[in-house]
Amino acid sequence: MNPRPRLFAPGPTPIPDAVLAAMAEPLIYHRGPDFPVLLRGVVEKLKPIFPTVDDVLLLSASGSGGMEAAVVNTLSRGDRVIVVQAGQFGAKWTAICKAYGLDIDIIDLPWGQALDPEQIVKRLTPDTRAVLTTQSETSTGVLHNIAAVAQIVKHTDTLLIVDGVSSVVAHALPTNDWGVDIAITASQKGLGVPPGVAIVTVSKRAWVAMNHSDLPKNYFDLKAYKTAFDEGRGPATLPVTLISGLRAALNLLHTEGIENAWKRHARHAQAVRQATEALGLSVFAACPSNALTAIGLPKQLDGVALMHHLLTRYGITLGGGLAHLRGRLIRISNLGHVDDLDILSVISALEMGLRAQGWEFTPGTGVGAAETVLG
Amino acid sequence: MNPRPRLFAPGPTPIPDAVLAAMAEPLIYHRGPDFPVLLRGVVEKLKPIFPTVDDVLLLSASGSGGMEAAVVNTLSRGDRVIVVQAGQFGAKWTAICKAYGLDIDIIDLPWGQALDPEQIVKRLTPDTRAVLTTQSETSTGVLHNIAAVAQIVKHTDTLLIVDGVSSVVAHALPTNDWGVDIAITASQKGLGVPPGVAIVTVSKRAWVAMNHSDLPKNYFDLKAYKTAFDEGRGPATLPVTLISGLRAALNLLHTEGIENAWKRHARHAQAVRQATEALGLSVFAACPSNALTAIGLPKQLDGVALMHHLLTRYGITLGGGLAHLRGRLIRISNLGHVDDLDILSVISALEMGLRAQGWEFTPGTGVGAAETVLG
Repeated sequence: MNPRPRLFAPGPTPIPDAVLAAMAEPLIYHRGPDFPVLLRGVVEKLKPIFPTVDDVLLLSASGSGGMEAAVVNTLSRGDRVIVVQAGQFGAKWTAICKAYGLDIDIIDLPWGQALDPEQIVKRLTPDTRAVLTTQSETSTGVLHNIAAVAQIVKHTDTLLIVDGVSSVVAHALPTNDWGVDIAITASQKGLGVPPGVAIVTVSKRAWVAMNHSDLPKNYFDLKAYKTAFDEGRGPATLPVTLISGLRAALNLLHTEGIENAWKRHARHAQAVRQATEALGLSVFAACPSNALTAIGLPKQLDGVALMHHLLTRYGITLGGGLAHLRGRLIRISNLGHVDDLDILSVISALEMGLRAQGWEFTPGTGVGAAETVLG
Repeated sequence: MNPRPRLFAPGPTPIPDAVLAAMAEPLIYHRGPDFPVLLRGVVEKLKPIFPTVDDVLLLSASGSGGMEAAVVNTLSRGDRVIVVQAGQFGAKWTAICKAYGLDIDIIDLPWGQALDPEQIVKRLTPDTRAVLTTQSETSTGVLHNIAAVAQIVKHTDTLLIVDGVSSVVAHALPTNDWGVDIAITASQKGLGVPPGVAIVTVSKRAWVAMNHSDLPKNYFDLKAYKTAFDEGRGPATLPVTLISGLRAALNLLHTEGIENAWKRHARHAQAVRQATEALGLSVFAACPSNALTAIGLPKQLDGVALMHHLLTRYGITLGGGLAHLRGRLIRISNLGHVDDLDILSVISALEMGLRAQGWEFTPGTGVGAAETVLG
């Protein structure tokens, strides 16, 4: 028998059966009477997930589309912005801001390092229009301290825009308590729905900022989304089946309780980190995220071959090292709909893969370390 | 028993069981080894559907996102463009071009009227950078003669960009034979997949034009899509389950044969039109599309009440009149995965709904007229 496919990549994450079933139901017509009920229900159920009391909008796009929407709606050509770039997803902010002609002050951190909020204090000027940062940097497994950044920015006229694509559900992102003006997440990460929906929160301050934005937009015009959502519609066709899947996923999360989901991610990530160290390997990130663990590999181990072995022999998909870290990192995600035995399974597979490459340790060492966290 | 839901709206269209089953399969990781095989297979199977030999790109977006991508990649601020606006979807071209500061010459036609290609001849100037038009105007059921427009534009330096969102699969859109530089369609129309994938063809001439475009773009940067697709990836996360659904839908269409699918849409639309006239009603469009039939209602009939009756009593979703035509039109779509008995069912339901509003005719008249086309 072929092994059952098991996803431990940091998105898309495993799809719960209830979500698959919801997506196989008869499609809801986006101009019919049932759609506003679906849309409003999903929006309301998303709010406690961040948590937020701000407007929540859904776009037919990947998370990157939600990030671009944040930029083009609030900023104007030549505006000064600070971008926190500590990996591939921070670099996406830079690319978007560059495409739209913004004046970018990049806090360019070595991959694996977390932001020191003091750097925001140093760079912030009265004419800085926005700080754009990642919460969980998926390429390195680093968690940035958004609460501390928000504390610095909230008493200024600068907007705080946070890529929470891979952090939401793993970590709290309380936009109003902290002072985050726009937060972005996506369907295929902590929520456990296939990719295709970007989710954007918009604060009152961000709505006001939009009155002065001169960057061109039509598809990503968030005011048009707000007007349409108030009528229970999208300004263009929304991805209805994925939104039905979101409803099912949110029902699961509300049954679990979002605080419990945060704790689950913390326990699972802790278990993976303990196993990593017990196996004589190292956690790559200085300040690790609870969404995933990036494991730095010593020179005698080949990450690409290890991932290939785990995929072909055990059906396990891990994230690899991106860009210059290809082959030097493996990334084990516990993001989304993952339970304790899933975590122990991936560590078992990792042990067998490491032994196949001649890495020496007593079999069961990693699993044992994880069990002490989970048991 | 509640009636089974039956979609006769012009998108989303009914989802074939094989597509639902494909979307419920284990999700393919977009960075894993199976994804390039999926993506390249879908791109190759899409080409005969237009048909086209151009590059075909898939975006995580609705059709509107594909339309915006066509504009922002090929044009520059202040460029002169001609827009054919004969309904709500033609007006979308105007809105996009306006948002990006283009110099727009609008051919503003009354709703229900088809473009006279001579109007393009009159408006075309040496500095016109693009003609943007709809093929099948879904709000009115009108088909514009794209072959004739292409014949006028192809020997000039003007690009021809065609919204084929609701026409592809119902009508041929042979981009190379005619000379269409960019054609856009979407997953939820003729292809019978849920919404969330925009599909864009790009001619050699359009790629060259992109070298001179100065409009800002990042998410919709088609060159980045091309580079990523050449490696079997998307530049951002693509909607994997919907693309798996597309593969299944394309397999069905290739089994049927695209020429047969065009003929099927022609027969079905003809059957609906014959039934419409047999029932004493009128087809709204001067030059009707084979994707849907817009039926103009006399004053004593109420379109909104009629649609409500068909939905609650028979589970049938029709398209209504949009904007100023609300209540004055009903739109019956035969687009996508629809068979002969589906067509006869919707006409039966229409007959019963019309009789409930006191419209007089011999029961079975409409169905009989349709049967003479289909039998």
